[in-house]
Amino acid sequence: MKEKISNSVIRRLPRYYRFLDELKEQGINRISSGELSRKMGLTASQIRQDFNCFGEFGQQGYGYNVDILQKEIINILGLEKMHTAIIVGVGNIGRGVAQHINFNNFGFSITGLFDIKESLVGQMVYNMPIRNISSLDEFCRENHPEAAVICLPVDAAKVITAQLINLGVKAFWNFSHYDIAVDHPDILVENVHLNDSLMTLSYKLKNN
Amino acid sequence: MKEKISNSVIRRLPRYYRFLDELKEQGINRISSGELSRKMGLTASQIRQDFNCFGEFGQQGYGYNVDILQKEIINILGLEKMHTAIIVGVGNIGRGVAQHINFNNFGFSITGLFDIKESLVGQMVYNMPIRNISSLDEFCRENHPEAAVICLPVDAAKVITAQLINLGVKAFWNFSHYDIAVDHPDILVENVHLNDSLMTLSYKLKNN
Repeated sequence: MKEKISNSVIRRLPRYYRFLDELKEQGINRISSGELSRKMGLTASQIRQDFNCFGEFGQQGYGYNVDILQKEIINILGLEKMHTAIIVGVGNIGRGVAQHINFNNFGFSITGLFDIKESLVGQMVYNMPIRNISSLDEFCRENHPEAAVICLPVDAAKVITAQLINLGVKAFWNFSHYDIAVDHPDILVENVHLNDSLMTLSYKLKNN
Repeated sequence: MKEKISNSVIRRLPRYYRFLDELKEQGINRISSGELSRKMGLTASQIRQDFNCFGEFGQQGYGYNVDILQKEIINILGLEKMHTAIIVGVGNIGRGVAQHINFNNFGFSITGLFDIKESLVGQMVYNMPIRNISSLDEFCRENHPEAAVICLPVDAAKVITAQLINLGVKAFWNFSHYDIAVDHPDILVENVHLNDSLMTLSYKLKNN
């Protein structure tokens, strides 16, 4: 595997993973870059270039072995190693994420859920009781979660993120509108800014 | 307003909108590009360039009027005009989105919710009963929704999206793993691929 993979290739890897998964479900074991490109709306040469970034998979004229290729992508994305993660904020969106996302498939094991609302504390989500956010410090000192899913209002997100970074959390899946990277430029963050996405759709509709 | 705004500027507009909203909540009426840049982690010249794309707001030495600037961004994003939208798929993530997102603030008015599950049909979400997906055709012919929020498994998403395009739906907020743009390149789409985002976080943790 070559040293440095570009950001745009990394962004495409999950899409490849998904498409290969669909092929496997359909019982397809081998696919040419041409077929894959038609299915994915990319050029065949783009796909060949992407895959060349991390080694030799295809044989000219034989196409790619779906299973081997997917295993390599799993390896590059680090999905086979489990990282522990907590979910902070189990309101509508936090609960939706907790129940909808199959974290284990994507390299994460949820070890705790937290909320500030007394009415939520003790409720079972993801086969775990929601804990009071006041126990966050103690929990993190004992269990050392590596990542946190932040589903909080912006003010709470700012406070809790700083607290979690102090407690050793290294990566954030951020659903809040707090821009973690502004205050913590060295922390790993993936943002899911739903409102921004919706505003962009509004822009597209207006300027269609 | 100049003719063509670049994609990267458009992507930043929702962030500006959010930051200006926070400033208003804090009672701040005027801000310099320098202050705004510190708060947002962008360079001041970047911000000036972005704002110059759509007209003259700042006066040298006086900074920007927060209210006027936000109103202009609202105008550019088209948030003041309401587009009708339906939500298709009201499982965990669809319900979370329906309950969590303030659609009216972002240019959308939800006029219908649909699911295939009999156990969900009739339940109230967003002050509306969930309708049976079998009534989708009739509903669209009567109400002409402009946009659809797709929260369905990939196979269902493919079928329903094609059906909705035939019924005149022009824009999709896509939470499914179905890549709408591959089959329908001319349709307006904003994708929220949550699994892809989580896989990218896994990659960052592995390659930190």
